[in-house]
Amino acid sequence: MNALKVKEALKLFLLEDIGDGDLSSVLFTDTDQGEAIIRFKEAGILAGVQCFKWGYELLDPSIEVEVLKQDGEHVEIGEAIVRIKGSVATLLAGERVLLNLIQRMSAIATLTHSCVTTLNSSHTRIVDTRKTTPGLRMFEKYAVRMGGGVNHRNGLYDAVMLKDNHIAAAGSISRAVTLVRSKVGHTVAIEVEVETEEQLLEAIEAKPSIIMLDNQTPEMISKWVQLVPNTIITEASGGIDLQSLASYGSTGVDVISIGALTHSVSNLDISMNLAVSHKEAVFV
Amino acid sequence: MNALKVKEALKLFLLEDIGDGDLSSVLFTDTDQGEAIIRFKEAGILAGVQCFKWGYELLDPSIEVEVLKQDGEHVEIGEAIVRIKGSVATLLAGERVLLNLIQRMSAIATLTHSCVTTLNSSHTRIVDTRKTTPGLRMFEKYAVRMGGGVNHRNGLYDAVMLKDNHIAAAGSISRAVTLVRSKVGHTVAIEVEVETEEQLLEAIEAKPSIIMLDNQTPEMISKWVQLVPNTIITEASGGIDLQSLASYGSTGVDVISIGALTHSVSNLDISMNLAVSHKEAVFV
Amino acid sequence: MNALKVKEALKLFLLEDIGDGDLSSVLFTDTDQGEAIIRFKEAGILAGVQCFKWGYELLDPSIEVEVLKQDGEHVEIGEAIVRIKGSVATLLAGERVLLNLIQRMSAIATLTHSCVTTLNSSHTRIVDTRKTTPGLRMFEKYAVRMGGGVNHRNGLYDAVMLKDNHIAAAGSISRAVTLVRSKVGHTVAIEVEVETEEQLLEAIEAKPSIIMLDNQTPEMISKWVQLVPNTIITEASGGIDLQSLASYGSTGVDVISIGALTHSVSNLDISMNLAVSHKEAVFV
Amino acid sequence: MNALKVKEALKLFLLEDIGDGDLSSVLFTDTDQGEAIIRFKEAGILAGVQCFKWGYELLDPSIEVEVLKQDGEHVEIGEAIVRIKGSVATLLAGERVLLNLIQRMSAIATLTHSCVTTLNSSHTRIVDTRKTTPGLRMFEKYAVRMGGGVNHRNGLYDAVMLKDNHIAAAGSISRAVTLVRSKVGHTVAIEVEVETEEQLLEAIEAKPSIIMLDNQTPEMISKWVQLVPNTIITEASGGIDLQSLASYGSTGVDVISIGALTHSVSNLDISMNLAVSHKEAVFV
Amino acid sequence: MNALKVKEALKLFLLEDIGDGDLSSVLFTDTDQGEAIIRFKEAGILAGVQCFKWGYELLDPSIEVEVLKQDGEHVEIGEAIVRIKGSVATLLAGERVLLNLIQRMSAIATLTHSCVTTLNSSHTRIVDTRKTTPGLRMFEKYAVRMGGGVNHRNGLYDAVMLKDNHIAAAGSISRAVTLVRSKVGHTVAIEVEVETEEQLLEAIEAKPSIIMLDNQTPEMISKWVQLVPNTIITEASGGIDLQSLASYGSTGVDVISIGALTHSVSNLDISMNLAVSHKEAVFV
Amino acid sequence: MNALKVKEALKLFLLEDIGDGDLSSVLFTDTDQGEAIIRFKEAGILAGVQCFKWGYELLDPSIEVEVLKQDGEHVEIGEAIVRIKGSVATLLAGERVLLNLIQRMSAIATLTHSCVTTLNSSHTRIVDTRKTTPGLRMFEKYAVRMGGGVNHRNGLYDAVMLKDNHIAAAGSISRAVTLVRSKVGHTVAIEVEVETEEQLLEAIEAKPSIIMLDNQTPEMISKWVQLVPNTIITEASGGIDLQSLASYGSTGVDVISIGALTHSVSNLDISMNLAVSHKEAVFV
Repeated sequence: MNALKVKEALKLFLLEDIGDGDLSSVLFTDTDQGEAIIRFKEAGILAGVQCFKWGYELLDPSIEVEVLKQDGEHVEIGEAIVRIKGSVATLLAGERVLLNLIQRMSAIATLTHSCVTTLNSSHTRIVDTRKTTPGLRMFEKYAVRMGGGVNHRNGLYDAVMLKDNHIAAAGSISRAVTLVRSKVGHTVAIEVEVETEEQLLEAIEAKPSIIMLDNQTPEMISKWVQLVPNTIITEASGGIDLQSLASYGSTGVDVISIGALTHSVSNLDISMNLAVSHKEAVFV
Repeated sequence: MNALKVKEALKLFLLEDIGDGDLSSVLFTDTDQGEAIIRFKEAGILAGVQCFKWGYELLDPSIEVEVLKQDGEHVEIGEAIVRIKGSVATLLAGERVLLNLIQRMSAIATLTHSCVTTLNSSHTRIVDTRKTTPGLRMFEKYAVRMGGGVNHRNGLYDAVMLKDNHIAAAGSISRAVTLVRSKVGHTVAIEVEVETEEQLLEAIEAKPSIIMLDNQTPEMISKWVQLVPNTIITEASGGIDLQSLASYGSTGVDVISIGALTHSVSNLDISMNLAVSHKEAVFV
Repeated sequence: MNALKVKEALKLFLLEDIGDGDLSSVLFTDTDQGEAIIRFKEAGILAGVQCFKWGYELLDPSIEVEVLKQDGEHVEIGEAIVRIKGSVATLLAGERVLLNLIQRMSAIATLTHSCVTTLNSSHTRIVDTRKTTPGLRMFEKYAVRMGGGVNHRNGLYDAVMLKDNHIAAAGSISRAVTLVRSKVGHTVAIEVEVETEEQLLEAIEAKPSIIMLDNQTPEMISKWVQLVPNTIITEASGGIDLQSLASYGSTGVDVISIGALTHSVSNLDISMNLAVSHKEAVFV
Repeated sequence: MNALKVKEALKLFLLEDIGDGDLSSVLFTDTDQGEAIIRFKEAGILAGVQCFKWGYELLDPSIEVEVLKQDGEHVEIGEAIVRIKGSVATLLAGERVLLNLIQRMSAIATLTHSCVTTLNSSHTRIVDTRKTTPGLRMFEKYAVRMGGGVNHRNGLYDAVMLKDNHIAAAGSISRAVTLVRSKVGHTVAIEVEVETEEQLLEAIEAKPSIIMLDNQTPEMISKWVQLVPNTIITEASGGIDLQSLASYGSTGVDVISIGALTHSVSNLDISMNLAVSHKEAVFV
Repeated sequence: MNALKVKEALKLFLLEDIGDGDLSSVLFTDTDQGEAIIRFKEAGILAGVQCFKWGYELLDPSIEVEVLKQDGEHVEIGEAIVRIKGSVATLLAGERVLLNLIQRMSAIATLTHSCVTTLNSSHTRIVDTRKTTPGLRMFEKYAVRMGGGVNHRNGLYDAVMLKDNHIAAAGSISRAVTLVRSKVGHTVAIEVEVETEEQLLEAIEAKPSIIMLDNQTPEMISKWVQLVPNTIITEASGGIDLQSLASYGSTGVDVISIGALTHSVSNLDISMNLAVSHKEAVFV
Repeated sequence: MNALKVKEALKLFLLEDIGDGDLSSVLFTDTDQGEAIIRFKEAGILAGVQCFKWGYELLDPSIEVEVLKQDGEHVEIGEAIVRIKGSVATLLAGERVLLNLIQRMSAIATLTHSCVTTLNSSHTRIVDTRKTTPGLRMFEKYAVRMGGGVNHRNGLYDAVMLKDNHIAAAGSISRAVTLVRSKVGHTVAIEVEVETEEQLLEAIEAKPSIIMLDNQTPEMISKWVQLVPNTIITEASGGIDLQSLASYGSTGVDVISIGALTHSVSNLDISMNLAVSHKEAVFV
């Protein structure tokens, strides 16, 4: 991730929760220093650990953040991933927002990793979709990578996906691919979505970069993949989830895209434990 | 929701996906007009329907958005919620982002509604937490309301929650409440979290606005609630989910807060069907 | 105040005055270093001193800011509150903006403190209103706290105030309170404004969190306050100023809100004295 | 004022007060329409009336705003300046922020107008300073113009003011003016501040655009002004207020700058009266 | 271009020039209406015409903008491209900024078109680079398309270019391509830059999407292109300009990238002629 | 330049190119450190060197930037201007954007310097215009100063230029100047554009700050300048370029404004050479 862009996003996230200030911080003075440990309360794959460092530094440059585990690592129940030292008021001010973020990112990484494991293929890769949470695409796509997947296009601006409406507008798959090819640059991948073998054969003729085989059984995928020359990437998509994934492992398809990686994920349980390491008297 | 704030957020969400432009839009001209219908593909409670109107108007003020169902309504499988007419290119440019948003909002509303139904109490209310997705708190808290829940505090700035670290810093529950009360305004609710009956009794003495009974069984909640005078609101929290909720229906607690309403929700399946209503010839 | 939010605001304020650059800075080189002392030229209560530190660090991270007095302290005529060392060009670039801010904040703190002193009550508290300067609410509400007051609601989003239009829309005070209560969360205070004893009695029945006694004499306030049970907070409001405040000291009302704290205040006289501590020759 | 810039500022101001939404708006439905009249409750000069139009349109493009008085006009007690029709919820959501703004702007215009009247000079003009409220400079300088004054420089970027530190850095007034003149463009005015007759004579030799006569009696100003050639503008500054202004009317100085125009002004009393013109039944 | 993103950029551009307001607008009243015609004063290819519409609507929604020529069209000397009606003050306020933008965009489109014409190849395409003006990439890349070119990657985020440092870090071209291929998604093009035939052969083995032949003569390009299989795109780059372009027309290379399209272009001469169509008396 | 404003602009520029991240950075680890040298590949005047420091610090505060040449200095072919040490990934991420900026700024400085040299006048100064690249005015006007020119007005907000439409609206030059003079402050320069000797004489009577002699031959300029009293600045403008400039050297005009300084400039060739100074093994 681009650190500069991450920090701008973290600013917005922290402002959303803290607003004009943490009302309960009146209980603490500058001499209330503490040490916080962030731990996994269920096992999973870590993603976004650097956000603790960047986030807390935005709140207070003097805070010390020690990263104990790296993104992409498997973390066991109870294992610590970050140690943070600084003002208790600041530690509490950033806690919820940063946990919310890393819980979601690690949940996505963990689910992606499960998909990769379940698929159990040295050939086929797991990719995400554009079904991400608004405002969090950079974070969620990064989490997919940390879980062992790779990313589909970032948005409408960096690759072309031709679906029924596009093809209807152009008149045929062939015309659609040709017209788009003439307008977009040579670095832009063009993908065509097909739902029938007839469309598949037409798509192969049009020589797009990628053909998406939409909503097909593993058997059909296996069969169709053999019709496609090596120079065209094949993608299986549509309703594939962690359960059904195993049966796609031997289809030979190049990538399998799974919307659920980002649109249907429950936060991983990660929590902060705060110890007040040094405490001056408070005279109430 | 504040329309002005919603629109500023929608701008960011749309820019995230569209970037410098939709590469595939080269296939459409201004004469390619269409009509899109947004439908629920599984039953649920609608939330965020107005975002289609605000979102598409940001992309193109001439687009027509007709809202067919209102937020908070139950929508059956296959029912249409919005009809949109305008340029095909614009319809496709906004589709994914706005679906991503409303799918998440409606999922939260639907889950909240299930919780309310399962709880089946005329007294006890379901509330959310600060465990929301970074950047989406306004949208997610609104969705909770549409599902029949109400909102806990918005953030650290509009109510006080006193937990173990706060109480330790002040020396006792009583001192913590007194000190905070003297510093914050008269509109600010002060909530104290308790985990033992001893703490509960101390908290009652301190007269906070709310006492949170953390991680207790329904039996314990029932018992403790009877110890608390009517002028203090009681809140049950901690690990309560859709399954365990029914057993809290007769505890008499005032509110039950459930983090899962916003941190562990799978998007509701909602999709757009686009018909090209008028189509000039494209000469390729 | 939330340091992150303060810094974002200070950026806007500094950009407003400095724009593309200080034209007169061509007279200085990097070797022109100086020491600036900020002094009160009239006595008052300090508020906002940290803004010198945050503001100058935005302009130049190498500048040294030593805070000599803390917010909330009484400062005598001629006393120094901050010492700043750094480039003369930077010291002059930030001077006016930061003085403008702290002069206004300290004026508000000083006026609030005068109100608290004049009121001379151990029971009744002074609170502000939403009549703040657009864009400065966080700063002005903080200044009120530094002067010994506390804050009324931050805005329309964190507490409910029911006035004539709201009550008319609902049909009665009772219906208005009931309807709002059912929609807003349990942390939200509901306040009802009353102007007659009849309304007061109706309001008491409705059991809001707060009743505002609008535009009443001290005698009437004293009388009405006795009608209100302890579980409802009473607020006196409307045309109360520093002069009339003393007569409200023994009314027993819980809080007195005063718009003039923030809408009618003359800046406190605070100035910067700059000594060029080290000076290389300039060859013109 | 630049409408585009005003609207961006109004967005920030409205978001500051409304946040995620007006909690009390649950009492109103879309059928609750109303008509609001904005009236002066004390006489004064109007400034900023267009902000009602721009501000309400940001909240709801369908709202109708009719401006009844123009900026710069004298308004009597009780006179209406704006009539606004639209949703009651929207009318209430924008009321406080827009009143806060126009009350301050009209107060500044009114004070400026009093200064112009008190000065009673066909030659000497009243100007403001950089002692404006952070974030509001454009609005406050506009208000000064509406009151009959004109503006001093906008900021550090559009004119040069040479004070003691600048002159010391350069070695002499003459060197300071010469050096700056060689670096800044031909549209930039250079002003020199003098406190003694010796400095005045030196300044005249240096031929700046403007000489500021700092902290002098009317007698001294009269005497010094006669020493300055017509091609240099003279400015009196320092501690001049509404009371002392009359005695400067015959000094012949070109402009008098008054910081109090913007740093020490009490809001003018302006209020909104809302009539609910059409009202459907609300079933509670 | 994404209209939403264009408008956000136009706001910044207009604010940069207009600031707090056009000082000379005091000469005009609302009754001063005019009609402006935008004309090419030298022949060229139009790009960015829609910016007049979007830009003026930001300043004043009531202004009427009639587009007379479309982007991509050749415009002769003296031909009109836009007619605008509205307030004279607004017409003048937006003139300079919008001309600055369209002059640059049209210059880029015109230069690109010249390159395409000079190259005179039905096979080889002209593409831009990342050598664009900071802040204007979307506008400049759009202009290249309007001139008949296509775009290279948008930035570091949407395609991979492997140069000497990348290859050195990985150890070899082959390892670099393999490693990157395993990390990036299937829609991402990977391009390898080569400077010798040895590198070329190694690159061909690695099977990247694109091979860039850096700084080679047309003869060398012709020779090398024949070594590359059809499934890999070839790109010539490095010091190719309008003059030398013709000699690359028959090399058979797929694309030629030219930095000068955006980094070395003189604005096209386009001007606005304003006629005051209706004029009320101004009494000075 | 105002460092605070420069940094905000650099953020936007860097985000434009880097987006969600540099895809090719997967080839580098944190142990890949390097040293980059920025060199001029053609001789010229340096402008904007500080942007390397500010820009790289935004990407990574630990990066070390050593500035070897100062803005305004002449740099020979091959000379180094900056040395940068840090992570290879970061060095590559910022390279293109910062080069794009400094290449343009240095090109403007170099062209300005050529104009000053060609003009060869101790009296007449070279100034820029508002024909700058949208979004880059601060940077481009700074570059003009570094090349030995000075700046015309920044925008519509800091000086007045009266052209034909303004004069027509007022009725005459005299009325236009008088009316504007009465409305704008005493620091604002008023400039009148004239095209005939009759207009010139009328303008002289009106006593503006500056008279612009538009589109005149050197001979006519010489003649007209003698008609203008010393207290009015004269400006020659219109179609003057590097070629024709020499003939204006002895006209005696005060300033010559040249749009081409900023609207028609080819980037100076400046490049970065990166040496990987320390390299851990990468196991692929």
